[in-house]
Amino acid sequence: MSPSDQTFGTFFLPGPTEVHLSVLQAMTRPMIAHRGKDFEALFARLQKGMQDVFRTTRPILISSSSATGLMEAAVRCAPPGPILAVVNGAFSERFAHIARSCERDTDVLDVPLGRAVDLDELRRRLVAKRYVAVTLVHSETSTGAQSDVHTATRLCRDAGALCLVDSVTGVCGTPLLFDEWDMDFALTGSQKALALPPGLALGVASAAYMKTAPAAKGRGLYFDLVEFESYAAKNQTPNTPALPLFYALDVQLARIAAETMERRWARHRAMAEQTWRWVDDVARRTGLPLRVLAPEGERSMTVSAVVLPAGVTGPAMAAAVRERGFVIGAGYDKLRETTFRVGHMGDHTPDRLALCLDACEEALVALAK
Amino acid sequence: MSPSDQTFGTFFLPGPTEVHLSVLQAMTRPMIAHRGKDFEALFARLQKGMQDVFRTTRPILISSSSATGLMEAAVRCAPPGPILAVVNGAFSERFAHIARSCERDTDVLDVPLGRAVDLDELRRRLVAKRYVAVTLVHSETSTGAQSDVHTATRLCRDAGALCLVDSVTGVCGTPLLFDEWDMDFALTGSQKALALPPGLALGVASAAYMKTAPAAKGRGLYFDLVEFESYAAKNQTPNTPALPLFYALDVQLARIAAETMERRWARHRAMAEQTWRWVDDVARRTGLPLRVLAPEGERSMTVSAVVLPAGVTGPAMAAAVRERGFVIGAGYDKLRETTFRVGHMGDHTPDRLALCLDACEEALVALAK
Repeated sequence: MSPSDQTFGTFFLPGPTEVHLSVLQAMTRPMIAHRGKDFEALFARLQKGMQDVFRTTRPILISSSSATGLMEAAVRCAPPGPILAVVNGAFSERFAHIARSCERDTDVLDVPLGRAVDLDELRRRLVAKRYVAVTLVHSETSTGAQSDVHTATRLCRDAGALCLVDSVTGVCGTPLLFDEWDMDFALTGSQKALALPPGLALGVASAAYMKTAPAAKGRGLYFDLVEFESYAAKNQTPNTPALPLFYALDVQLARIAAETMERRWARHRAMAEQTWRWVDDVARRTGLPLRVLAPEGERSMTVSAVVLPAGVTGPAMAAAVRERGFVIGAGYDKLRETTFRVGHMGDHTPDRLALCLDACEEALVALAK
Repeated sequence: MSPSDQTFGTFFLPGPTEVHLSVLQAMTRPMIAHRGKDFEALFARLQKGMQDVFRTTRPILISSSSATGLMEAAVRCAPPGPILAVVNGAFSERFAHIARSCERDTDVLDVPLGRAVDLDELRRRLVAKRYVAVTLVHSETSTGAQSDVHTATRLCRDAGALCLVDSVTGVCGTPLLFDEWDMDFALTGSQKALALPPGLALGVASAAYMKTAPAAKGRGLYFDLVEFESYAAKNQTPNTPALPLFYALDVQLARIAAETMERRWARHRAMAEQTWRWVDDVARRTGLPLRVLAPEGERSMTVSAVVLPAGVTGPAMAAAVRERGFVIGAGYDKLRETTFRVGHMGDHTPDRLALCLDACEEALVALAK
């Protein structure tokens, strides 16, 4: 184990997450031609590894962009017609914003911050108006709310709408069974539960969705899913790939395969429960009104947003924890002042998380004095 | 000097180019928050360094994507109206394709392969019809032709059209004086004369262009130049940045500043002339009809496409050179079989290029037997 790997486990932002030194070092491999056989072999390995992550036999879309790029792809390649955006936080709001910025007729289903997608309301909205697609977020990184994308997909399917799922902090940290759940589209980013540096977005589109995509006008080139799939068939990317991140993904997929996806999901669940338990314990021990923002049953396995006592702000909390050697996040956007966020995902372990939570408690007690 | 830096200088593809080990190693720096002060300081350094590269005081657009992304941005943010695409090779054809794929009314000005943009014909076309924008390529990586983008920009300006310049293998290898030449838009990719790994596109847009951009409909989010500029003003990127490549750019810009842009341009010119001289010498020494595809005065400083004798193909030539320890490119697209390409750009030096050209000569003689 390298010195850096020994100190791994101090950076608990809800993305980017800390990256193991062996994965970082993969990026120093020399350049190769991206239209040559070595690249094609690399691409084929990444397909195989990521298909296990997404639980699919469909081609994996690998975009040299942030996740926002594949969110835009999902919208641009959807058939003409109105889109319903379910908004329960900053990233689902971004999905709505992307749809509008692509000149799509966009309605919003608003859900209170901290809550999962309201499936009953979704059903009602899908009955009341015909939509071609619904956008929603699996795990809302801004609030720590996790939604039932399996049921949401079924509701959309029944109503004849595509269900476009941002699973940026879902995939690889909590089950998302693309084929078994009969999903239309799902995407993630490299810098979350996959524990890679930022720079890649990874997604899957169903065969049914891809049948409609070629008719979508004005798709452009960079986020054209038709291009992604046709190049993937020859183990290439349509555009010049961010090669170092492909190298890093290659090494990380071998590490993930060694752990197995089932154990990875279980580790994430254990760290999530550890965090919730810690919140309850601190509230009891200190008398401070600390609570997880999302109600039980609607909580993310990868990120927790915790409501702070009055008088302690998110940025102050993050700064005080940093002084104690750990990096966590302040609240995000509208929740910036009233919450803090811990990213318990990627390659983190319960042992290191416990140390981070100790630091959080110490910081909180000092700030609440 | 590290062991890997000692063997630097065997990879002469016209992109990606070889990357110095010290630059690769910068990518192993640990993750940081991209909305924090450390990132903002990094971003500010990159702005300053890249402004010297582009010779501009305008904000630098840093896109976590390949260059194709900023080509698409240039088109999407252009005012409504017809676009004229000057096509003299595969990458200028790609620019035309992007315009069409964004549902833009697109005319093409065809130029023979290997020739620079025909300025007289451009003037005629601009008089004959009113265009809102012209797309063209500074250095055509597929043919090794270099165009006079200074004059082209002036012609477009006189006709009231924006001149959108792909300088992917131009910038940093040959002068492009954005402010002095009063340019509208220029872009490059990280993996060419900048000698970084692929994964970033870097560009500049004029204040005049940016005044019109907010009115362009359907720009989307990821390639919205308005977003890029508003975030750059606070030293941030609109979307999650490909952090390791930002680290690499940081180290490389310090190396470029130490060399100075003037010396970098001169080194590229010296390597280009060395390659042309070598072609003439080989033709004379061997009697083989070898010639640079682009005529004198229209040649790229960063990539040379060389026409092969009948019976020797581009792929056979690249394979034979690889057996001798050097990587060059076969021809590209329509020129694949009839030419080979040498990328003499980035951090390469005349000494190492001489060894590569020796290997090329040996391969050629063996193949032509």
